Amino acid sequence: MSVYDEESASKTITLQDVATAAGVTVGTASKALNGQGKLRQETRERVLTAARQLGFRTRGLPATDHITILLLTSVIHTRFSIPLLTGLEQEVAQYERPVSVLMWRAFNQEHQRQHLEGLLTRPVDGIIFMADDTNLHPPVPLPPEHQQIPHLYVYGRITDHRELCLLPDDEQGGRLATEHLLSQGRREIATITGPLYFEAVHLRARGMRQVLLEHDIPFSETRILTGPWSIEWGYKAAQQLLERDPAVDAIFCGSDEIACGVIEALQASGRRVPEDVSVIGFDNWSSMVYRVRPHITTIDMGLPELGRRAGQHLLAMIEGRETPQGALYQHCTLVVRDSSGVPKHSLSLKDGVQKK
Amino acid sequence: MSVYDEESASKTITLQDVATAAGVTVGTASKALNGQGKLRQETRERVLTAARQLGFRTRGLPATDHITILLLTSVIHTRFSIPLLTGLEQEVAQYERPVSVLMWRAFNQEHQRQHLEGLLTRPVDGIIFMADDTNLHPPVPLPPEHQQIPHLYVYGRITDHRELCLLPDDEQGGRLATEHLLSQGRREIATITGPLYFEAVHLRARGMRQVLLEHDIPFSETRILTGPWSIEWGYKAAQQLLERDPAVDAIFCGSDEIACGVIEALQASGRRVPEDVSVIGFDNWSSMVYRVRPHITTIDMGLPELGRRAGQHLLAMIEGRETPQGALYQHCTLVVRDSSGVPKHSLSLKDGVQKK
Repeated sequence: MSVYDEESASKTITLQDVATAAGVTVGTASKALNGQGKLRQETRERVLTAARQLGFRTRGLPATDHITILLLTSVIHTRFSIPLLTGLEQEVAQYERPVSVLMWRAFNQEHQRQHLEGLLTRPVDGIIFMADDTNLHPPVPLPPEHQQIPHLYVYGRITDHRELCLLPDDEQGGRLATEHLLSQGRREIATITGPLYFEAVHLRARGMRQVLLEHDIPFSETRILTGPWSIEWGYKAAQQLLERDPAVDAIFCGSDEIACGVIEALQASGRRVPEDVSVIGFDNWSSMVYRVRPHITTIDMGLPELGRRAGQHLLAMIEGRETPQGALYQHCTLVVRDSSGVPKHSLSLKDGVQKK
Repeated sequence: MSVYDEESASKTITLQDVATAAGVTVGTASKALNGQGKLRQETRERVLTAARQLGFRTRGLPATDHITILLLTSVIHTRFSIPLLTGLEQEVAQYERPVSVLMWRAFNQEHQRQHLEGLLTRPVDGIIFMADDTNLHPPVPLPPEHQQIPHLYVYGRITDHRELCLLPDDEQGGRLATEHLLSQGRREIATITGPLYFEAVHLRARGMRQVLLEHDIPFSETRILTGPWSIEWGYKAAQQLLERDPAVDAIFCGSDEIACGVIEALQASGRRVPEDVSVIGFDNWSSMVYRVRPHITTIDMGLPELGRRAGQHLLAMIEGRETPQGALYQHCTLVVRDSSGVPKHSLSLKDGVQKK
């Protein structure tokens, strides 16, 4: 047991107790302990002495002015838990001192029992920084006395090559998608994708270009359409593409959302998917891939696997074992559904329709 | 600064260092420090001595055998973060020691900068237990030395009346829904709701009964249909209801999901919503209320507000201020859309159709 545990076993001393002992209000006691507000030095010292004598530090109240709240739940992303967490975060953000809300998911009573004590007594042993996108980011500045804490990055690439970053292999994902379209006999391939300031957009297009090059298939840059990550953009972009480039027989979409819009636009224009135009998405996001008919063939980045690896590497660091540095890329996988390949039964039909 | 901070500023001592110093493998060192596995007492002591001499305790590694990992992110419930977290949790669950993954959302760089140090050095100051449902639950057993840590419950009712629990007022929500249907001139009201083992199901129905009673409107228990929380159940239940009870002119649904199914079934049977049958849901869940036409009038439990209150009360406890005990209920609000009231333009039409 660390010093912390033993001390926190003593009877709870509240700020109220300290205030009473020092003969001041709770507000004054709080100010004095946090070194905030205007107080006579004599008052501040009386409060600090009372706090010391009562062993106040050892109770929950922060030595720094920081407060940590644990939100313990078994449901971490439901329509109930998310609004609750959001309201809670907004509330504490307005508090006079910094308050962080940590969310922990207990899978069941036993899991909770096993972990609760450790959670209440341990500070953090390691950190996983999860970025919003896979673009290049500077390393997160750690407080001086915590430079050494084991940490790594997932889903974000870091400028410092000594930092370990785990990333999906967007370029290989782009290759995979393109090879699949070629395997379906398609040659007139276009891509409708996300905003150019996403590195993933460039990498996926690069993977596509490389494969086409390797197969000596000419490619015009006008067949790359970039815009927002949305169904609407997919729909609009597909319309533009069909107008100026009706020969296109396959579309590689930068996301499943975009693919939804693309398929709707193709069908609205009287084209059949996949017979006339083969479509493939990216993400394998279930609420999108099953949203349209035909269901969407897509590329899966294997995010759960990325999370598993992050756990493996961080635990190795915490144990002091050797761990790799720099960016590690995880292969994407192809998930075949109906939007890309031609259903057997309509093969003959397709041959009738295909390129002339 | 607590003892913790000062010590953790020293050079990182890894388990490898301890193992080397004690002349054992990392695995043995780990076992010895965790009091696990079969080891000769002499070996265990050699490791513990080495750890003490190197000041190993003060490094990240747990004094208990518990490890805490912080997952720092700005996106807590996206299609990227959730699978990542899930994979990470699965991985660490298989680890030889208990590992908890705490999730913290940093809104921006500045927010992160302000909180990171506190997060890395502070143990937990208070706990909010979020239940999966509002049913009656026993209090969560806290480790003996943490009985006094400030805590409260949200979205769950606790058997111990000294515990503070914050709950939505399901009964009042049921009253609100029923009063709204009456205000629309409806008198033949039925309810299609969730499983009977949810307390909320009983409370919402009770609120409905009370209002009908107050208005001397007879009500038959056969007009309460309970089943799963699903669109499918809503559809099936509405079909059953229409067959055996065609006079019904309003349906109070236990959830917006159920309401979706109910509206689809009504329309499939040729009834108009709301002209022929008025429908109201529960939850104000955006992915449901806009999923059908007409959009769903519903009851909102005010979950963000519930979260804000949880924050207010817990911070008051942490400060040692007086806080209430027992269950506090928060009023629900009515959100009027098109499924309940009759659009002005079709009023005359409605009068023509309504009860002859």
